[in-house]
Amino acid sequence: MKTRVLSGLIMLPLLLILYFGGYVLFAACLLIGIMGVREFYNGFRQMDVKPSFGIAVVMAVALYVLNFIGVRYEGYMLWFFVTVLVSLLYLFNIENRKLEDAMSTITGIFYVVFFSFHVTLVDQAGPYSNMIWLIVLTAFGTDVMAYFTGFLLGRHKLCPKISPKKTIEGSVGGIIGSIILSGLFGYFFMPEILVHCLVIGLLGGIVSQFGDLTASIFKRKMGIKDYGNLIPGHGGILDRFDSVLFTGPMVYYYIVLVIGYMPN
Amino acid sequence: MKTRVLSGLIMLPLLLILYFGGYVLFAACLLIGIMGVREFYNGFRQMDVKPSFGIAVVMAVALYVLNFIGVRYEGYMLWFFVTVLVSLLYLFNIENRKLEDAMSTITGIFYVVFFSFHVTLVDQAGPYSNMIWLIVLTAFGTDVMAYFTGFLLGRHKLCPKISPKKTIEGSVGGIIGSIILSGLFGYFFMPEILVHCLVIGLLGGIVSQFGDLTASIFKRKMGIKDYGNLIPGHGGILDRFDSVLFTGPMVYYYIVLVIGYMPN
Repeated sequence: MKTRVLSGLIMLPLLLILYFGGYVLFAACLLIGIMGVREFYNGFRQMDVKPSFGIAVVMAVALYVLNFIGVRYEGYMLWFFVTVLVSLLYLFNIENRKLEDAMSTITGIFYVVFFSFHVTLVDQAGPYSNMIWLIVLTAFGTDVMAYFTGFLLGRHKLCPKISPKKTIEGSVGGIIGSIILSGLFGYFFMPEILVHCLVIGLLGGIVSQFGDLTASIFKRKMGIKDYGNLIPGHGGILDRFDSVLFTGPMVYYYIVLVIGYMPN
Repeated sequence: MKTRVLSGLIMLPLLLILYFGGYVLFAACLLIGIMGVREFYNGFRQMDVKPSFGIAVVMAVALYVLNFIGVRYEGYMLWFFVTVLVSLLYLFNIENRKLEDAMSTITGIFYVVFFSFHVTLVDQAGPYSNMIWLIVLTAFGTDVMAYFTGFLLGRHKLCPKISPKKTIEGSVGGIIGSIILSGLFGYFFMPEILVHCLVIGLLGGIVSQFGDLTASIFKRKMGIKDYGNLIPGHGGILDRFDSVLFTGPMVYYYIVLVIGYMPN
């Protein structure tokens, strides 16, 4: 608990990355995507499944290069095709490969690299680029508030088979915390879209918990407790960013579909 | 052999579908995608892996609806995200699901539904929509020519661990056959882009064999001989269209990247 809180301070550089945005954030997202997919694949190795980290690195770099040179949506489609294609060709060494090796390669690249890529996309969303803060506010706000609410008031288990310590009270507290934090952010920094911030706070409070639980399911099936031990008390990169993988796309598609702003 | 050739005649309706194009082809592609992914998932069930056919049907219909209403690339990106997301949420019934169930769901939708979707995209490629014929000419031309060349001249095994009967001679014959057929097609129907047709014939002769071998790898790992028995002597839908899954995207991205035509 003490380690957990203290180590939380190590996350402070993240604030700087978010503040600077642009190239700094771009590089950070790529790096976190690559480190995250490495942890994800290491988990699979515990199940004797061997995804190709090499393919993941190449495809992660390719995705960010496409974005950098301005080849957007039609490029992402080609990227999707090539990602699946190359992962399937990985099976041609048939004696040393299982179908799971290719399927986990595909899943890791999309789940970790592609999902986290949306953080960069939000940063590029012109007048709405500040909404990048909502990605982390909802993710970490939900996490912290759920933790303390559950600690103080938790009585009823949420889904003991996936995550035994989580409670319904904690879950609700997390959502309320996410709404409050997003609301405060909107009130002070984006008052003209305060209502959108509140709605994102609500949605983020929900999807961030799905992100957390999804990671828990993977870890449980892989038979590991944490994805890594990069940050003492916080586990690996993926343990810390499991919710961001879900709140990033949520904020991005909210901007595109609800607000109607199309980043180019 | 006789059954194989006779049953080939059953493929004639395919010519009508290609000739009509438009809505007829659109519907046929969606149907073939859904039937194909069903066969693919049935193969996984032999390995005690249980992908969700329900998710695949919903996502296949969603992809074609997006295309139909004209929400293209940015919509496909959302479709990719939702496909992965929903397949991951499928794991929340944690006691009855394995990671492989979600990963095979994802792989099937992308490999079968998304790859075959490119046939529709080529049909929508304005002045180049006739290149849809090259998708099947290269796929079936390679297949038939490789079969007969291998039958007559085959001496050296191509990759006995994946497909024991294939020979290098057959493979080369298939590529040459694909070039000749594509060249003849270009000469008579698209003389202004004859060179492109020849190049596509060469590329198609290669990628269609990769498509064939990829399907063989899956079937071998699944422990099945054919994906189905829809067409006597030809197996299932996927046995027939395994090469089209690769030549379809190849022709589409050739049009976009090499010819430089961007379908809208």
